[in-house]
Amino acid sequence: MEKPLEAMTGWIDEIHLGVRYGLKGKVIVDEQSPFQRVTIIDSSRYGKGLLLDGCWMTAERLEKHYHECLVHPALCSAAETKRVLIIGGGDGGTARECLLHKGIEQLDMIEIDRRVVELSKEHLPSIGANAWNDPRLNLKIEDGIAWASSAPNAFYDVVIVDGSDPKGPAKGLFNKAFFENCRRILRPEGVFATQSESPEAFRDIHLTIIKLMREIFDYADPLYGWVPIYPSGWWSWTFASLKKPRYLNPISDRAMAVAGNCQIWSPRWQQGAFAAIPAFIERELKE
Amino acid sequence: MEKPLEAMTGWIDEIHLGVRYGLKGKVIVDEQSPFQRVTIIDSSRYGKGLLLDGCWMTAERLEKHYHECLVHPALCSAAETKRVLIIGGGDGGTARECLLHKGIEQLDMIEIDRRVVELSKEHLPSIGANAWNDPRLNLKIEDGIAWASSAPNAFYDVVIVDGSDPKGPAKGLFNKAFFENCRRILRPEGVFATQSESPEAFRDIHLTIIKLMREIFDYADPLYGWVPIYPSGWWSWTFASLKKPRYLNPISDRAMAVAGNCQIWSPRWQQGAFAAIPAFIERELKE
Repeated sequence: MEKPLEAMTGWIDEIHLGVRYGLKGKVIVDEQSPFQRVTIIDSSRYGKGLLLDGCWMTAERLEKHYHECLVHPALCSAAETKRVLIIGGGDGGTARECLLHKGIEQLDMIEIDRRVVELSKEHLPSIGANAWNDPRLNLKIEDGIAWASSAPNAFYDVVIVDGSDPKGPAKGLFNKAFFENCRRILRPEGVFATQSESPEAFRDIHLTIIKLMREIFDYADPLYGWVPIYPSGWWSWTFASLKKPRYLNPISDRAMAVAGNCQIWSPRWQQGAFAAIPAFIERELKE
Repeated sequence: MEKPLEAMTGWIDEIHLGVRYGLKGKVIVDEQSPFQRVTIIDSSRYGKGLLLDGCWMTAERLEKHYHECLVHPALCSAAETKRVLIIGGGDGGTARECLLHKGIEQLDMIEIDRRVVELSKEHLPSIGANAWNDPRLNLKIEDGIAWASSAPNAFYDVVIVDGSDPKGPAKGLFNKAFFENCRRILRPEGVFATQSESPEAFRDIHLTIIKLMREIFDYADPLYGWVPIYPSGWWSWTFASLKKPRYLNPISDRAMAVAGNCQIWSPRWQQGAFAAIPAFIERELKE
């Protein structure tokens, strides 16, 4: 195992392509799980935070930037929301935002790494919050890729992929076979959602994800927002559906029911974030 | 003068509120002008770059993220574009984007710090590019605040403030007296534009700027985008006008004439970027 991330400097950094982003703080836990290096830190700016394999995942006072944008465009637009699947999402933030939606009856959350859940519950309890005790949550410590390949056809109203960068345990979450299973297990009027990396720091992966989703679903579009702790701070989530791009239009009463809890997301914000595709990505997608 | 910014680590960092953002590289020039510390660096990720008082300003391969978003919403929507004023903008990028607009007859650029212009011309020539030799450019090394207070009433079609954070020489670029002069020298169908900091890393300043502009102009709205080298990566520019929010609607033939040169900006992107106001800022502005 490598030396502690703060390396006596008082900074915990993620380094990517000659850029580093660091928070002043200290490392609380730094261990190797069977799947990845799991690090919990305490920072002055954003409170406690989680890194996987040295990459920023979440932090107490910044996590809503990511979780709201992944969840509400999907949960507000699928025809129903009775059965929802989260693949990954071990910190609990995605489950918490999903469970704001009263229509959910069963929320299956399939996280491969038990230690991410355990350490998040212990050190980042505000992120999962009540989700961990909600009777609608069905948490399984299993491989999400295998789960997607064995779940029944047309079973879920919404499928959400909340994984890390496409390497290590998340590598299989961004390929054709996996997306095809996600489509297969999605109900015809459902919505599929995944984080889809930065158009700046991971430009090629970002484009590949969108193009692949457009091959497999009838419609797929990226939405752009901000997660300051991720490389470049500029992040995206991509949504897909069949027959029409239903994710573009939140159902009003569902949006009203959750908007008061949101720091970033609103129907207005969402409309803007789908439109705010930078010119260089729009050109690439037209080719 | 402080020690070189890369301090033997090979990283040049800006530190803000317990967060650091650094580029791998080396310092080429590091000097104290009469106004501020001026640093030119060479980075592996974004090429050569400029810092003022230790804060990231621009870099060769990232500068369009900032300059396009400041310039085109204003230049595409003012009734005319014959006389344009830039206050600040010493690297030349704002002037270059302005001069893409063929309607400009006179572009006054008032930069207080001669060394910023000289070092940008020498080390960052691609940023100013042809602007430096364009006969429409009238560059004055003077105090932009004094210029705004002495320019004639209703003289400029567009006034653009391209300053750094509100401290040091840029401190006077964000107060009521200055904005009142900007309104006074603007033509009635003109557009005023300023960078307006990050809603995340400079939340209070950002809100103050918008509220102040709404007091002084009839309409003012922020537009949100990304400048990965700035604190949080999440940045804003605020536009103002009289009688109607004309900055929301780019004039089609002007937009068509410049869009092909843009990496980020397009009429679609602009519409999204004005809509993508985060919920926490929207609530603050309604109070």
